Amino acid sequence: MSMSAARERLVVIGGDAAGMSAASQARRLKGPDELEIVAFERGHFTSYSACGIPYWVGGDVEERDRLIARTPEEHRARDIDLRMRTEVTEIDVANGRVRARDVDSGEESWTSYDKLVIATGARPIRPDMPGADAPGVHGVQTLDDGQALLDSLARTRGRRAVVVGAGYIGVEMAEAMINRGYEVTVVNRGSEPMSTLDPDMGRLVHDAMQGMGIAMVNDAEVTKILTGEDGRVRAVATEAAEYPADVVVLGIGVRPETALAKAAGLPLGAHGGLLTDLAMRVRGYENIWAGGDCVEVLDLVSGQERHIALGTHANKHGQVIGANAGGDYATFPGVVGTAVSKVCDLEIARTGLREKDARRAGLQYVTVTIESTSRAGYYPNAAPMTVKMLAERRTGRLLGVQIVGREGAGKRVDIAAVALTAGMTVEQMTALDLGYAPPFSPVWDPVLVAARKATAKVRAS
Amino acid sequence: MSMSAARERLVVIGGDAAGMSAASQARRLKGPDELEIVAFERGHFTSYSACGIPYWVGGDVEERDRLIARTPEEHRARDIDLRMRTEVTEIDVANGRVRARDVDSGEESWTSYDKLVIATGARPIRPDMPGADAPGVHGVQTLDDGQALLDSLARTRGRRAVVVGAGYIGVEMAEAMINRGYEVTVVNRGSEPMSTLDPDMGRLVHDAMQGMGIAMVNDAEVTKILTGEDGRVRAVATEAAEYPADVVVLGIGVRPETALAKAAGLPLGAHGGLLTDLAMRVRGYENIWAGGDCVEVLDLVSGQERHIALGTHANKHGQVIGANAGGDYATFPGVVGTAVSKVCDLEIARTGLREKDARRAGLQYVTVTIESTSRAGYYPNAAPMTVKMLAERRTGRLLGVQIVGREGAGKRVDIAAVALTAGMTVEQMTALDLGYAPPFSPVWDPVLVAARKATAKVRAS
Repeated sequence: MSMSAARERLVVIGGDAAGMSAASQARRLKGPDELEIVAFERGHFTSYSACGIPYWVGGDVEERDRLIARTPEEHRARDIDLRMRTEVTEIDVANGRVRARDVDSGEESWTSYDKLVIATGARPIRPDMPGADAPGVHGVQTLDDGQALLDSLARTRGRRAVVVGAGYIGVEMAEAMINRGYEVTVVNRGSEPMSTLDPDMGRLVHDAMQGMGIAMVNDAEVTKILTGEDGRVRAVATEAAEYPADVVVLGIGVRPETALAKAAGLPLGAHGGLLTDLAMRVRGYENIWAGGDCVEVLDLVSGQERHIALGTHANKHGQVIGANAGGDYATFPGVVGTAVSKVCDLEIARTGLREKDARRAGLQYVTVTIESTSRAGYYPNAAPMTVKMLAERRTGRLLGVQIVGREGAGKRVDIAAVALTAGMTVEQMTALDLGYAPPFSPVWDPVLVAARKATAKVRAS
Repeated sequence: MSMSAARERLVVIGGDAAGMSAASQARRLKGPDELEIVAFERGHFTSYSACGIPYWVGGDVEERDRLIARTPEEHRARDIDLRMRTEVTEIDVANGRVRARDVDSGEESWTSYDKLVIATGARPIRPDMPGADAPGVHGVQTLDDGQALLDSLARTRGRRAVVVGAGYIGVEMAEAMINRGYEVTVVNRGSEPMSTLDPDMGRLVHDAMQGMGIAMVNDAEVTKILTGEDGRVRAVATEAAEYPADVVVLGIGVRPETALAKAAGLPLGAHGGLLTDLAMRVRGYENIWAGGDCVEVLDLVSGQERHIALGTHANKHGQVIGANAGGDYATFPGVVGTAVSKVCDLEIARTGLREKDARRAGLQYVTVTIESTSRAGYYPNAAPMTVKMLAERRTGRLLGVQIVGREGAGKRVDIAAVALTAGMTVEQMTALDLGYAPPFSPVWDPVLVAARKATAKVRAS
């Protein structure tokens, strides 16, 4: 089939949030007569919420398909030429083409592009140790992973689960396994769970999770996964001990999936992610964009690049890329590092810099930690919460906030996220006009209590 | 008793949030050998949460004393000379003294001051109509009012309550009476309840409250309160109809209580509140401060003065006044007009300008209204919410946000409150790094969905 010379082709590698948001946004701006869009996805699904997998596994979400925002058919109905189960194996930048392989048939072919979007995502860190591939050991990165874990749970007689890793995925999977009726042990390399928090705040998470009956093992590097006579996992071993396991969930985190980009000579950062400009263009390449879990993002507080795999960023990247690839203009200015999570009724949130991030960025700072409640103290179900705040010495600029509490605690981090974005000082924050009524907040919102205390400490610094 | 010449006297008029916060903060900065603090309160209580009264009346808060943050004895233990049941009847600015009357004995005396804090609060608007003082008709401004209402409910046989007014107090009292098992009718002068929202958003509140079984009567001015043979209320009459009532709650709003200040020649604004500078000093008076419900505050969005009676502002004012009166330095920069409330499980929030405020301020604007959910759509109990956003034409500066929804909707207004304070555009907001996880938010937070739609509309404006 011949194409008119005026019709450009946009090729998208990766069919999840960033890639398909980019494709959809570009399509909104340019019809199929102006722009052909070809998207390659090596898996079975498009545009799904990987963040939702723990809730599906845990039973809060009943059906896998509820996690799928848009199916391949829906994308095709919008004139996107979506090629499922097709893996891109090479980017030929010099000639403007990609090589793709049909995963099932093994057949390969080249597709040329005028514009390219790289949205290859991240791959889970899988420990390179004996037994890591044994039946009963599961990652939870993709819908296929989730389905495999659920199938495995259906076959498992025992009720002992070991979760390896105590970051977001680890603690969410601990909740999921509790909800499935398992006895859960979390084995964690760090000194406290949630290394995205400072250790003093991580300790609160540790204590709360133990209070839920979860066995928390810190400072423990997994050395081996032990299997039984049937070849199936039977225990997780560290230097110091063995933890019996009928099922093992790996939640150790992810790395940018940039092997293709690296082979093509595209610029990667210190964390292995693609480097882009503010319009999400790969640095130095006019017609190649990248977004989602495969890129590094600018941390607006430290001024340094970070790798953060999070669906909300991927969606924003996709929007920006789609706008630019579709001939409009948009930018992604960077992140402040906001995250929120929960384990049963414990809410955990953070934004900005931890103490070690601040030190690494060369910043001097003060910290305060306060206890308050999510509602007026006299109101029913006023739940305790702890807020830690970091502010720059002398200037008083807000550097970061960490929150551990119960219902109503977590999303308060947004106050700090916006204040960080705006470059506010903690003293400016003390005057913030936040929503107040007894069912929603004490008369001084906990974030303001922390800001007041931090203001006093900055003055004395 | 003679005093040393170096010892100053701070006199505080009003013993609730603003006055006693000011007294306490000044005391923290200056000990009793440097600063004498005399505070006058005409009622029986100090430092209580008037905002909590609906929850006490409704039974969520069991004891009145839970609403009291600090008792007279606690203040006295901090070396504050607190004179309860003592009403200031005159401020003599020329001679630096106030005249106070013992409410019980009627005895009067003068007290001189070096520094004065006026925190006389607000008085409820009571309709000037026949029957307004009849037994069974109640305001809910003070703890005494709340107690009188509860006593009245204990004596009431019938179960029909009419709430006059559909602002925050009105809707919260509607909830309280529902919780007490009453059939509730809300009679409202405006075209929709919650006139602090635009009418289209007020309509959502109207519909939701009707869905709770509350009879909502709009466009209805109360002309008369009808009493029975026993002299007790029996109905509320409007031009058009009569609404049978065994008890009537007046929630029509409040006005600044500034008769004393006016008589003393102090500057009042268009809303009847005292006018202050940014340090909360009464304009033109070096040694007089005012704060809380008796002052007008600067609206940072419109640049105009407003009167807002809200405990969270009163507490901030008190802190600022106490710092300045105590020889330190602090300012209250103004408000953006944030408020949050609920009626049963309906959450209502607003910040910034309504359409009519924007017009009054001479601003041209665009509006968008979006529907979303408080959690990821697939997560259990994802509750619907509606967000309306106003942005300035051309510049795209955020002007206001209104939210009506269910659990998890209301406090999202804080995102907009901080963005307003920072002067962000809606396009800047689209990049905000807000906390995301399926139990807390869709991948695009509802506020961001509104910001994206508003951005597109600003471009087209």
